[in-house]
Amino acid sequence: MERGNIPRKIKGFRDIDADLNELRQTIIREAARVYRSYGFEHWDTPVLEYADALGKYMPDEDTVDKGVYNFRNPEEEPVLLTDASEMRDADGKVVMEYHPLALRYDLTAPLARVYSERLWQDVRRNQIMESNAPLFRRFQYGPVYRYELKLLPGRLREFWQLDFDTVGTSDVAADAEACMILSDALEAIGMERGTYLVKVNNRKVLKGFLLSVGIATEEQEGAVLRVIDKLDKIGWDDMRLELGRGRVDTSGAAVPGLGLADATTNSIISFLKLATGVSSRAEVLQKFEQAAGANETAAEGLAELRKMDQLWATLGFDEERIVFDPSLMRGMAYYTGPVFEVESLLTYRDEKGRERKFGSICGGGRYDGLVEKLLGLKVPATGASIGVDRLAELLRMAKPGAVTAQGPVFIAYFDDDLQPEYYRIARLLRNAGIAAEVYCGNAKGFKKMKKQMAYADDKNCPIAVLIGGDEAAKGVATVKNLKLGKELESTTTDKQAWISSVQQEVPLADLVDYVKKQLTQ
Amino acid sequence: MERGNIPRKIKGFRDIDADLNELRQTIIREAARVYRSYGFEHWDTPVLEYADALGKYMPDEDTVDKGVYNFRNPEEEPVLLTDASEMRDADGKVVMEYHPLALRYDLTAPLARVYSERLWQDVRRNQIMESNAPLFRRFQYGPVYRYELKLLPGRLREFWQLDFDTVGTSDVAADAEACMILSDALEAIGMERGTYLVKVNNRKVLKGFLLSVGIATEEQEGAVLRVIDKLDKIGWDDMRLELGRGRVDTSGAAVPGLGLADATTNSIISFLKLATGVSSRAEVLQKFEQAAGANETAAEGLAELRKMDQLWATLGFDEERIVFDPSLMRGMAYYTGPVFEVESLLTYRDEKGRERKFGSICGGGRYDGLVEKLLGLKVPATGASIGVDRLAELLRMAKPGAVTAQGPVFIAYFDDDLQPEYYRIARLLRNAGIAAEVYCGNAKGFKKMKKQMAYADDKNCPIAVLIGGDEAAKGVATVKNLKLGKELESTTTDKQAWISSVQQEVPLADLVDYVKKQLTQ
Repeated sequence: MERGNIPRKIKGFRDIDADLNELRQTIIREAARVYRSYGFEHWDTPVLEYADALGKYMPDEDTVDKGVYNFRNPEEEPVLLTDASEMRDADGKVVMEYHPLALRYDLTAPLARVYSERLWQDVRRNQIMESNAPLFRRFQYGPVYRYELKLLPGRLREFWQLDFDTVGTSDVAADAEACMILSDALEAIGMERGTYLVKVNNRKVLKGFLLSVGIATEEQEGAVLRVIDKLDKIGWDDMRLELGRGRVDTSGAAVPGLGLADATTNSIISFLKLATGVSSRAEVLQKFEQAAGANETAAEGLAELRKMDQLWATLGFDEERIVFDPSLMRGMAYYTGPVFEVESLLTYRDEKGRERKFGSICGGGRYDGLVEKLLGLKVPATGASIGVDRLAELLRMAKPGAVTAQGPVFIAYFDDDLQPEYYRIARLLRNAGIAAEVYCGNAKGFKKMKKQMAYADDKNCPIAVLIGGDEAAKGVATVKNLKLGKELESTTTDKQAWISSVQQEVPLADLVDYVKKQLTQ
Repeated sequence: MERGNIPRKIKGFRDIDADLNELRQTIIREAARVYRSYGFEHWDTPVLEYADALGKYMPDEDTVDKGVYNFRNPEEEPVLLTDASEMRDADGKVVMEYHPLALRYDLTAPLARVYSERLWQDVRRNQIMESNAPLFRRFQYGPVYRYELKLLPGRLREFWQLDFDTVGTSDVAADAEACMILSDALEAIGMERGTYLVKVNNRKVLKGFLLSVGIATEEQEGAVLRVIDKLDKIGWDDMRLELGRGRVDTSGAAVPGLGLADATTNSIISFLKLATGVSSRAEVLQKFEQAAGANETAAEGLAELRKMDQLWATLGFDEERIVFDPSLMRGMAYYTGPVFEVESLLTYRDEKGRERKFGSICGGGRYDGLVEKLLGLKVPATGASIGVDRLAELLRMAKPGAVTAQGPVFIAYFDDDLQPEYYRIARLLRNAGIAAEVYCGNAKGFKKMKKQMAYADDKNCPIAVLIGGDEAAKGVATVKNLKLGKELESTTTDKQAWISSVQQEVPLADLVDYVKKQLTQ
């Protein structure tokens, strides 16, 4: 009954191997290039933060405690007052505490902290006000952490996001730009046009409409929005029941309804469906206006969408890339105006052979209240995020083999006396810009050529260079084109023909040139 | 006395701004290219791990608890036995626990976990033994975490490492290669030859020598090594005292000595200094042999160093790049054979104007016992790590301005009606491969041209494009070369001449070509 120390990862965490990393790095590199081309700077922030500096805006949750990895700082520190001075007890002694820390759950909360930290003193000195809060545009990528109590299959507790944000503008040109950036980034990553769709909505339009049908209090509104937000999971029929008299779920449990009148529920559902079958943004705007335009908030939201639509039209972003979707909610998080989401239209077959959709791979929107929580100054902001790991998964399943890590030229190890020669040749190749590895595993069984070639194969090495005593004496190397070999394997039946087309004896003096040629074929 | 929520980072943590990130990314990109060229694959592992899977090999510490951020998993999980089955209590109920988790303190412990996890089942089934443990070469970079109780100025609790390792070979060719990789990587990053030195030693030689002077037990050896390891901090004289009768430190506290006889202490110090003033590796090897060669362990270590030296000589890595240093220890960590460290020879002036050295920027060595702790199978390994943040700091202080992030072409905002036109021009520039940003800050004060230009200046924008109503009517833009403007600022006294050389009216049809030319000047 001895306790074991079993080598393993925490549930919901994973290692990224060379192939998957190649995919992840490709996504990051290409998207970052696009973000940069729009003027976003690359910043980075710590993975670990004071929990209260991350605010209480965990997406989909009301408090930062739920769904977040948190613990106490091992260092005892002074408790600070609202003016950042140290709290003291009755005896004048500084009150100390082990502050709660948290692993960041997204990259937006740390951005709000960065922006607020840089301006906090100036705001207190009244040098920065709403009227002159500076513009800040940055992109950032890296892991974020969610402690999901029930870990569904395929869900991760550590995953990478790739965000860009504009802080300090209420101009929805920035929102319109965010949608175009997502489109440009996905195409740069290799998602062809027509395989994704940027869907856009405006919270203000929805809020205004709900007001116009009598959903008057914030509490009522919140309850309705929460039900609408479940649409993807529960579908239209169950959503209708939850807005009305309630329903019984598949487990037999009662899900209470909001008790809205049928007429109200019908209006809401018609509103959410008003873009169904409509192919032009202009037409959706018209229907929006008919349904909710009288309300002031809705009118404001509509004007914003109209401005965004115009900018897209000017720059040629038509409905093949960006559409309006009145049912888009983006969770209960901090969004206050335009919201956007990218839906992948690619499908894959699950283990039972059923065709499945991937759903959302990017999301974002305007969050004009987030910075205020920390800085005490209303600074409007908007931005979006690519779910790097989700997108990598999508590309891997929808386009298998699209990106795999290529290994180095493999130099086999035959003879101890030739080892310096192997390394010399590897260096010559490297000097010519070609990655090369001399096999150095020396566990007995693994010196065998079969094992060496299995290693090279595992690593996806394109070429193997073999030099034994005979070759060395003749001043030649045997060069095997492993990549070509694999390609010809299925079509060639004559082994001798196969060998002669993928294997060649090459004088050492010509080796670098020969390998170079083989690699560029 | 209200508690404040002050936006700030945890002590020892920091944000990375665009300039510093440019430097960090340059280091990573260039070093990774070199690592790849030697056949290392890019892997990644979680930031958070089960504490016991990280082992008890915290560098410089005896246990994983010291110096590590750790906390309990919020998820209750079964306790596992040595065969990975679940522990049960007397009633047959599975014993549950909130397992201790830790933020990784380096990238080597997670590597040992990755390797062990992949092979653990096969080892238990006797399919993998010492004789056929596979070769694995990977590189990895990312943040690591050290909870330093006393945080000295300039020290960080979150910092980035950039490691490469070879697991599964006892061949010191891999160690020799590691030293060459460090050298190649640093030169690729921009450290010129002669500004750094790879220093190499072998624990076995030192151990063997200590045996030969009567340091016979592991306890004695450990005590002596701990004192030697402090050499950098305390210097030769205090080291001598600590090996002998002890000393009193600057605070007046007594530091007990090991009580070695003067003759023994003298021998040890002579040994540690035997390379002083010696410029060839061959000569150091000779002196090593004279001093410790009779001992078996020392002889084994010497043969390893000799083999490494030969490989370096074959490939042209002379003493300008790699030297032997008998006093090099690399802490009390897990190293078992060759150890290496890169010393920067660049200096900087501290705040008091004194010339300072940077010291160590990379380190590594052979650790043949680490994997065994987790896998129960002795799998030899060797590798090294670049301290990314330390190196970035060095490059920033020793070569100020060497790498700064370049901003986008800046498109100023004059006129609401022209906004779509600004975005259209930005897109034309982007389509030509030029980053461009339309100013979108709309807080009142920040629409002013002076504020806009300050923003462009802050972002290091090379060029500004200005289009007001007059320009638009004429179909032209005013293009300012901000970069050239800065360069000429110090030399030009005539303001009109300065303006005419950095500012130009350009027809919109020629704008992209004109900007392109300005950028490549």
